[in-house]
Amino acid sequence: MSASTTDAAPDTSRQAAASDADVARVHELATRSRVAARSLALLTRAEKDAALLVLADAVDAAAGRVVAANDEDIERGRSQGMAESLQDRLRLGEGRVADVAQALRDVAALPDPVGEVVRGSTLANGLQIRQVRVPMGVVGMIYEARPNVTVDAAGLGLKSGNAVILRGGSAAASTNRVLVDVMREALAEAGLPRDAVQLLEGGHGSVTALMQARGLVDLLIPRGGAGLIESVVTGSTVPVIETGIGNCHVYVDAGADLERARAITVNAKTHRPSVCNAAESLLVHRDVAADFLPSALAELADAGVRLHVDQSTADLAGDTPVEAATDEDYATEYHGLEMSVAVVEDIDAAIEHVERYGSQHSEAIVTEDRAAARRWVAEVDAAAVLVNASTRFTDGGEFGFGAEIGISTQKLHARGPMALPELTTTKWVVEGEGHIR
Amino acid sequence: MSASTTDAAPDTSRQAAASDADVARVHELATRSRVAARSLALLTRAEKDAALLVLADAVDAAAGRVVAANDEDIERGRSQGMAESLQDRLRLGEGRVADVAQALRDVAALPDPVGEVVRGSTLANGLQIRQVRVPMGVVGMIYEARPNVTVDAAGLGLKSGNAVILRGGSAAASTNRVLVDVMREALAEAGLPRDAVQLLEGGHGSVTALMQARGLVDLLIPRGGAGLIESVVTGSTVPVIETGIGNCHVYVDAGADLERARAITVNAKTHRPSVCNAAESLLVHRDVAADFLPSALAELADAGVRLHVDQSTADLAGDTPVEAATDEDYATEYHGLEMSVAVVEDIDAAIEHVERYGSQHSEAIVTEDRAAARRWVAEVDAAAVLVNASTRFTDGGEFGFGAEIGISTQKLHARGPMALPELTTTKWVVEGEGHIR
Repeated sequence: MSASTTDAAPDTSRQAAASDADVARVHELATRSRVAARSLALLTRAEKDAALLVLADAVDAAAGRVVAANDEDIERGRSQGMAESLQDRLRLGEGRVADVAQALRDVAALPDPVGEVVRGSTLANGLQIRQVRVPMGVVGMIYEARPNVTVDAAGLGLKSGNAVILRGGSAAASTNRVLVDVMREALAEAGLPRDAVQLLEGGHGSVTALMQARGLVDLLIPRGGAGLIESVVTGSTVPVIETGIGNCHVYVDAGADLERARAITVNAKTHRPSVCNAAESLLVHRDVAADFLPSALAELADAGVRLHVDQSTADLAGDTPVEAATDEDYATEYHGLEMSVAVVEDIDAAIEHVERYGSQHSEAIVTEDRAAARRWVAEVDAAAVLVNASTRFTDGGEFGFGAEIGISTQKLHARGPMALPELTTTKWVVEGEGHIR
Repeated sequence: MSASTTDAAPDTSRQAAASDADVARVHELATRSRVAARSLALLTRAEKDAALLVLADAVDAAAGRVVAANDEDIERGRSQGMAESLQDRLRLGEGRVADVAQALRDVAALPDPVGEVVRGSTLANGLQIRQVRVPMGVVGMIYEARPNVTVDAAGLGLKSGNAVILRGGSAAASTNRVLVDVMREALAEAGLPRDAVQLLEGGHGSVTALMQARGLVDLLIPRGGAGLIESVVTGSTVPVIETGIGNCHVYVDAGADLERARAITVNAKTHRPSVCNAAESLLVHRDVAADFLPSALAELADAGVRLHVDQSTADLAGDTPVEAATDEDYATEYHGLEMSVAVVEDIDAAIEHVERYGSQHSEAIVTEDRAAARRWVAEVDAAAVLVNASTRFTDGGEFGFGAEIGISTQKLHARGPMALPELTTTKWVVEGEGHIR
């Protein structure tokens, strides 16, 4: 699993009022999830891993049904004029189904976060205290086109002892329904509650009801485009972890090794432009602009990158086609082969620019100057600050977490790549011998 | 500092619409906090500790002004018919001012959470990654009567490198204004930005504007009664940590040492009944009810506790005055010398009862039965689960944290006593040598 791509299907990003029927249905669904969560929390790692393998085999065995349902979704999308790129994200061929099943086996191989003792001590009065990782309980995922998220979220949820409520985009409705049916059957076969994995269907009002199911749902994780995230963050009373908005910068400092700068810039922009840890904006110290920009711009353009630049950059572009950047460009996550570029006076101006336009995701400096690197690391406020490395490294897989549920760009609970431990909370266990105050 | 009491001043618990003027004023205030936060984040521990000592001396030196302003608040409250108990909470005599100043010195003595490396490694490709604690940025506190929170929050905020925006209850308006003025002067004297500590005044609309200042304010912590907490939790788009609602239980199991059960029950209920970690409800296994309840009820009644009981308990009460408990009683945090009591069939029924009525704060079992203790610890979902110890131990001071900003009853970010580390977030620092993917 890798950095979340943005599947900007518009259908879940508006907020509709929840009818009484929506609220009643979501409450009934979430209550069943809570019951399932109580038993999931008590499973051993061996039990959970065995179930994950049963799920993986079931997904493999159902590949034909999954692909057929997926064809249906794509056909429906095509007839409604869905963009090719969206169809690509939606598509699950036999090979992709096998990958999705394998991801469940990979999750089984990861350590169980539940039960980890985070800290503990014996107090002066003899009271023994320890802080232990426990599941969150019920976790809701609201996401867009890519149906592999359906299986990934179920697998990570199960491993971390949580019941999950999945709300995928309507574009993938048939695929998601088959995947969830298959996994629920497999759960029952493995002796676990089917309601460990539930699919929330119905209109937009049901999403609103989910976002308001405080006390029944412990955590909501939206994954998708800015509209979806914003809608969930502002409309929820259930706690939310914001993921995956990345307006990431590469700053080429006066002290940069320009060959490294070139490689990092091109990699950060073009390696996988649709994901949140791709760079959207290039800032160049004016002292190296004349040496760096002409060839860098040409290489980016050759790679198909459309360049939105300030006047100083335009003056150095030579024959490379560029267009004038608007303020809007600097604030935009392109999700594609476009990049904004600006020449800055100094590192202070670069930090100010990032503070103004960045989304606190991943911010890279290229420099051999120790003082500049130290300042960047200390002063840039982001989930990840990188020195002489591509922004593409902010990723659970790259960090060695094995799997990720998204990349958090908020400060509460989780910041940066979210893996299994971030799907848990803790509980204090206090043991005494009749202790009173 | 100890478990938060509930100062149920009604004036901040309603939600008013924010006018354009409110929004503009709060944005201007919060923007100044953000500027201050940027420099606070870069301070060394020595600089922060020195400033805390300057603040402490300044509060001491201003004791006369503080007490005069406090007298004014109390006089105004009295003329408006404020309850005696609320007047008590509001009161800051010379001695209490000295305590409040001393709390700042105690915070100076605590370790600095900022800069702590939480984890880190060198990846297979040579990339060095580390997760480092950094300040949240701007933290808002919305609280009720007790003016010591004004100083505690400023001190904990400063130590953790955060700028704080304080919104106290109108009952303490004069006291809070003097305390904040004194601290801001002291900050300037110490060479730090005054805006590290700001007071938000104005009508309820300004509180709404603060709750909606997403992007400017990183975290809101409400401290006070259930109405205030609910209003902040449901009305905020800024991330919130819910604190201090405690409907805590003591469950006397069939395997209990009844002398321990008696001592723990009485301590949990009567040691400091107004705080959130006091017990509100007593559950007794039916096998020990006849042995335990008659004397326990009598002792509670002797200590002045009003008892709301079920029929089985009433049958065992003898001469002890009891009244019939309603469903509402079992759901109530009394904050005083009242307790609900029920006899339960078994530990399953006790766990069900806690699941239904509890607030996931602190839940104690009294038992010598190892299996029962294990089940309680595993199955009860709360910030703290206690075996043979009073619920009163769920406290930052008791846990050895030295200071606490509140007790979180939510699962995200912080659960249980919140001290300095809980006022920080983390940042991933990634260092390479031109690494690309």
